[in-house]
Amino acid sequence: MSQFEFTHRRKNPLTGNWVLVSPHRNNRPWLGATEKNAPSNLPEHDETCPLCPGNQRANDVHNPDYDKTFVFTNDFGALTPQVAEQATQLETNPLFEIEAATGECRVICFSPKHNKTLPELPANEIKDVVDTWKQHYVELSAQYSCVHIFENKGAVMGCSQPHPHGQVWAHNHLSTEIQLEQANQHQYQQTHGSNLLADYVKREIADGERVVYQNDHWLVVVPFWAAWPFETLLVSKDDVRHFGQLTEAQATALADAIKVLTTRYDNVFNCSFPYSMGWHCAPSDLNDDSHWRMHAHFYPPLLRSATVKKHMVGYEMLAESQRDLSPETAAKILKNASDVHYTEGNQ
Amino acid sequence: MSQFEFTHRRKNPLTGNWVLVSPHRNNRPWLGATEKNAPSNLPEHDETCPLCPGNQRANDVHNPDYDKTFVFTNDFGALTPQVAEQATQLETNPLFEIEAATGECRVICFSPKHNKTLPELPANEIKDVVDTWKQHYVELSAQYSCVHIFENKGAVMGCSQPHPHGQVWAHNHLSTEIQLEQANQHQYQQTHGSNLLADYVKREIADGERVVYQNDHWLVVVPFWAAWPFETLLVSKDDVRHFGQLTEAQATALADAIKVLTTRYDNVFNCSFPYSMGWHCAPSDLNDDSHWRMHAHFYPPLLRSATVKKHMVGYEMLAESQRDLSPETAAKILKNASDVHYTEGNQ
Ligand SMILES: O=P(O)(O)O[C@H]1O[C@H](CO)[C@@H](O)[C@H](O)[C@H]1O
Ligand SMILES: O=P(O)(O)O[C@H]1O[C@H](CO)[C@@H](O)[C@H](O)[C@H]1O
Repeated sequence: MSQFEFTHRRKNPLTGNWVLVSPHRNNRPWLGATEKNAPSNLPEHDETCPLCPGNQRANDVHNPDYDKTFVFTNDFGALTPQVAEQATQLETNPLFEIEAATGECRVICFSPKHNKTLPELPANEIKDVVDTWKQHYVELSAQYSCVHIFENKGAVMGCSQPHPHGQVWAHNHLSTEIQLEQANQHQYQQTHGSNLLADYVKREIADGERVVYQNDHWLVVVPFWAAWPFETLLVSKDDVRHFGQLTEAQATALADAIKVLTTRYDNVFNCSFPYSMGWHCAPSDLNDDSHWRMHAHFYPPLLRSATVKKHMVGYEMLAESQRDLSPETAAKILKNASDVHYTEGNQ
Repeated sequence: MSQFEFTHRRKNPLTGNWVLVSPHRNNRPWLGATEKNAPSNLPEHDETCPLCPGNQRANDVHNPDYDKTFVFTNDFGALTPQVAEQATQLETNPLFEIEAATGECRVICFSPKHNKTLPELPANEIKDVVDTWKQHYVELSAQYSCVHIFENKGAVMGCSQPHPHGQVWAHNHLSTEIQLEQANQHQYQQTHGSNLLADYVKREIADGERVVYQNDHWLVVVPFWAAWPFETLLVSKDDVRHFGQLTEAQATALADAIKVLTTRYDNVFNCSFPYSMGWHCAPSDLNDDSHWRMHAHFYPPLLRSATVKKHMVGYEMLAESQRDLSPETAAKILKNASDVHYTEGNQ
């Protein structure tokens, strides 16, 4: 048993938000909602899927016969490059702050195969995804200060297409989360003379209790302040601030880390483990971004089984996040999960 | 069409968080997850329900034969009054901020009837709920600085028991949301010499576009910064800072406002409309709480129908909330919804 099995709160130094941890609560009975399992026998190609090679999408466009990754502009993007006319006459009252927003939304298909999620791809094909992320980050960050690369995996995480894919939303304002991480990392460097995540990585490696996986360039850890049951932080061990700086060696090591982490996730409950994940990089218009370190957050909702998730609802929305399982217990489970995917191995 | 039908962001002045608004996006097709409808033919008394009068709960305790509201200590509360021994030797590193947490969690049954949600209760029985909220607020705020009163309604909002009930979690630290609202309301009063929500109420009443309902003492509005599709703010028109100050007239008017709002919610999609709602009151240990005004937030997840909700996932978790429907359109729908519950009237 870890030293943290009592009720307490922990502070997320990147956002300033706190999390309430109630380890004893994991034993309560559950009669509430359960989720459907992801279908496990999808075809390799689905005629009706708008993301499969060769198929028709919205507006009569046909996908090419792609064989690695494939990227297109989101047919229903939340952001578009056009500035609206009305945007010139906006409110100035502090209670009605409003500003126009422009940007671009793209969809990244990870593979031509309809039925292969990230952990089911060989590492070299995950490396193609990493390279695609980098390419579009570089392209979009030349134009926009804030580039969000993320994946919603599983219907429970609002994913509307089972075909493995992620998204990129780029815009010129800093989103709320980037603004918070920017302010806190900057403040930390001013106060301590060192980089927040560099210091954090050092401490976690030395301590070991929350480390899930590491290789030469990347650390996967259940962060001390994790809010979701099996939340992880995937962070560069090197002084890399954004995708544009990623070397070949770092990209290859990143693909390995993703392969291991997503495989272990699936093996926790022998199911396709849903999550939302995404990258946080230094805004591209900073003069000095030395307080930044590139990292990804994985927010998976499952708590007790393939069908019972954690609900971040009343208390969590109106007060602060609450968790039952301690981060240390979650780390132990992820550390001990097999590196052979449950659909392949004989665990 | 409102003046806001272009892509923009709005700032929540209570928290400082922004929301991305993409009204054009409401037309995209939806093939993703759908939710189950709430069962509509529950019995008035369920032998197996741990909240029904006379039934057995966990630990062999039996509920009394209550006939109005009934309150008990949560058998699996996230907070308990005991301070753990380990809490004396906590970390001090700024990257590992941790503090012990103690408090109390109670469950409030709204009615002995297993099958009656708030909108289905007559106003005088909703008034009993308001009085119960007040009573427990007064009792707990004598001991704790931060008392969270909230309701998770519907399985999709993590509610594990269909019997109509809410919760109270009280503790001595200020939760993240209260901390933010405290700081922002205080700052506003320092800067403008007036109360943030008092000014906001005045502006919204004068404008009218986002007003859903009002009576002598309460205003229901889709706030300018609403993140959830049909989010509302229920706010006192009077200088009331917490439940302890509520007069009889204000309590009665509050019951009326809740009756109307929850009835309209159910009538939007002719279903038991899920939501998480909760109260924000001034912390009880302030010397001066004149910058506070008591209010409730309603966060309902449904977007397009009784079974299709908004998913706050990848972009929302990693960047900021995003909405499709504009707050003004949502307000119009709620304003036009019938005040006769769909199960009773002939709309
Ligand atoms: O206490 P309950 O109703 O069992 O639990 C519900 O509300 C709590 C407070 O918002 C949440 O922490 C839980 O995730 C949710 O399932
Ligand atoms: O763009 P998609 O995959 O259709 O939509 C999904 O991801 C978006 C970005 O996180 C969310 O705004 C939507 O609620 C979700 O359903």
